[in-house]
Amino acid sequence: MNRQQLITQIRHKRSFLCIGLDTDITKIPKHLLATEDPIYAFNKAIIEHTADLCIAYKPNIAFYESVGAAGWLSLEKTMTAIPDNVFTIADAKRGDIGNTSAMYARAFFQNMSFDSVTIAPYMGADSVQPFLGFTDKWAIVLALTSNEGSKDFQVMRLATGETLVEKVLKTSFDWGCTADNTMYVVGATQGAAFAEIRKIVPNHFLLVPGVGAQGGSLAEVVKYGMNADCGLIVNSSRAILYASVGEDFAEKARAEAKKVQQEMEQLLDNSGF
Amino acid sequence: MNRQQLITQIRHKRSFLCIGLDTDITKIPKHLLATEDPIYAFNKAIIEHTADLCIAYKPNIAFYESVGAAGWLSLEKTMTAIPDNVFTIADAKRGDIGNTSAMYARAFFQNMSFDSVTIAPYMGADSVQPFLGFTDKWAIVLALTSNEGSKDFQVMRLATGETLVEKVLKTSFDWGCTADNTMYVVGATQGAAFAEIRKIVPNHFLLVPGVGAQGGSLAEVVKYGMNADCGLIVNSSRAILYASVGEDFAEKARAEAKKVQQEMEQLLDNSGF
Repeated sequence: MNRQQLITQIRHKRSFLCIGLDTDITKIPKHLLATEDPIYAFNKAIIEHTADLCIAYKPNIAFYESVGAAGWLSLEKTMTAIPDNVFTIADAKRGDIGNTSAMYARAFFQNMSFDSVTIAPYMGADSVQPFLGFTDKWAIVLALTSNEGSKDFQVMRLATGETLVEKVLKTSFDWGCTADNTMYVVGATQGAAFAEIRKIVPNHFLLVPGVGAQGGSLAEVVKYGMNADCGLIVNSSRAILYASVGEDFAEKARAEAKKVQQEMEQLLDNSGF
Repeated sequence: MNRQQLITQIRHKRSFLCIGLDTDITKIPKHLLATEDPIYAFNKAIIEHTADLCIAYKPNIAFYESVGAAGWLSLEKTMTAIPDNVFTIADAKRGDIGNTSAMYARAFFQNMSFDSVTIAPYMGADSVQPFLGFTDKWAIVLALTSNEGSKDFQVMRLATGETLVEKVLKTSFDWGCTADNTMYVVGATQGAAFAEIRKIVPNHFLLVPGVGAQGGSLAEVVKYGMNADCGLIVNSSRAILYASVGEDFAEKARAEAKKVQQEMEQLLDNSGF
């Protein structure tokens, strides 16, 4: 999916919601455990009940790997259940030497048709560049994450005076990262740090985790992070997926997603988008 | 496997060789493609011909994921072919928020019985700590990698005067990383940088990629990196795996591994280990 298609989707759905498919076999409704592939059955129901309210789905790859080859099959099947016009994010946090990153790109972009993959930048240029050479595919590079550990290195000052996050953003331009092939992860829990990041990447889309269960505020994210093309994809996982653990889980998930979408519609209206 | 068992293995085999199972379906001998699971058939033959010469195997997870669920099955079967007394490394470069890192730990430590997993430190404390709580299991944290992109961030000076690598090493102690549960990746292509790193982590084992195809020198690594317990696990992948693409691939791989083991034996003898 290219940038214009993504923006069109936001405009039509009045939403910039991404639903994180952090599907945990120990948390899904018990009645699904009798089905052949409970993880897929859960995801399929969630997708069918929310695809008109969100613009992206983000399977968290760890949750699928944690149940072995069967989990990988559930993931492959889940991808076929997502409509083509919804953006897909493999939340994998990959990144390795060039020939290995190329293998990960093949796994997610070619074998499973993901639109994007999240990437850790610690290993530098050749760990990210293999993800850039695919038409209408995206690298989503970790910048400022939403977890407590983000304070360990990401916000450190370098000898040059900038923070590590700022250095990562600027350096990625040298790798060929543009607003048409790259997004950045910026955690919602970091509040005003958004403003500093927007000075460096005014046009890029930002993937924003940490709203909801992790405590970030949607209004705050919009205030500091929205740009003329919206420029935001805001993720919610647990609050939507596990809104109910009964047989009504999909309807309750829809109701929760609808609440977020309506809040987003109001914010988009206010901004004149 | 605990530290003492690893050291005993090095002492008995006169080797600190790790064989990287970067098994590429496009590079393995053509006659294997007729078997039910060519990747497993290749790995099994390599393991049977080299297990007395090396002390560790390191499947590169990207190569398995790149062929989908079938690749994950090949990986699970490969793990059953590795003798229990050989150390195993999931070269996965994972790292995510706490609940997600815990899922990756489950995938590699519990479901597949790996002894260790490589981890990218960009996300800080809670991305690494979930890997530390398992008896006789190891986190292998990226410090100074062997690729060109390692120059982008890892060797940068911070405002405090230290490099990012030095900061990662020191900070990891605060997370509970000890010489009994943590190793660090230090690329062989970085030569004298080893000496600086050894000042900070004199006792830890270091996993050293980049010898062979990537150009690092074994004698140089030993000169700057060896400690009283050896303290080194040196990886070779392509030079051994693809020594021949004929039906004699496993014998040729053994011959190549034997050459490295003999060089290591000499170096261990010289050091009085």
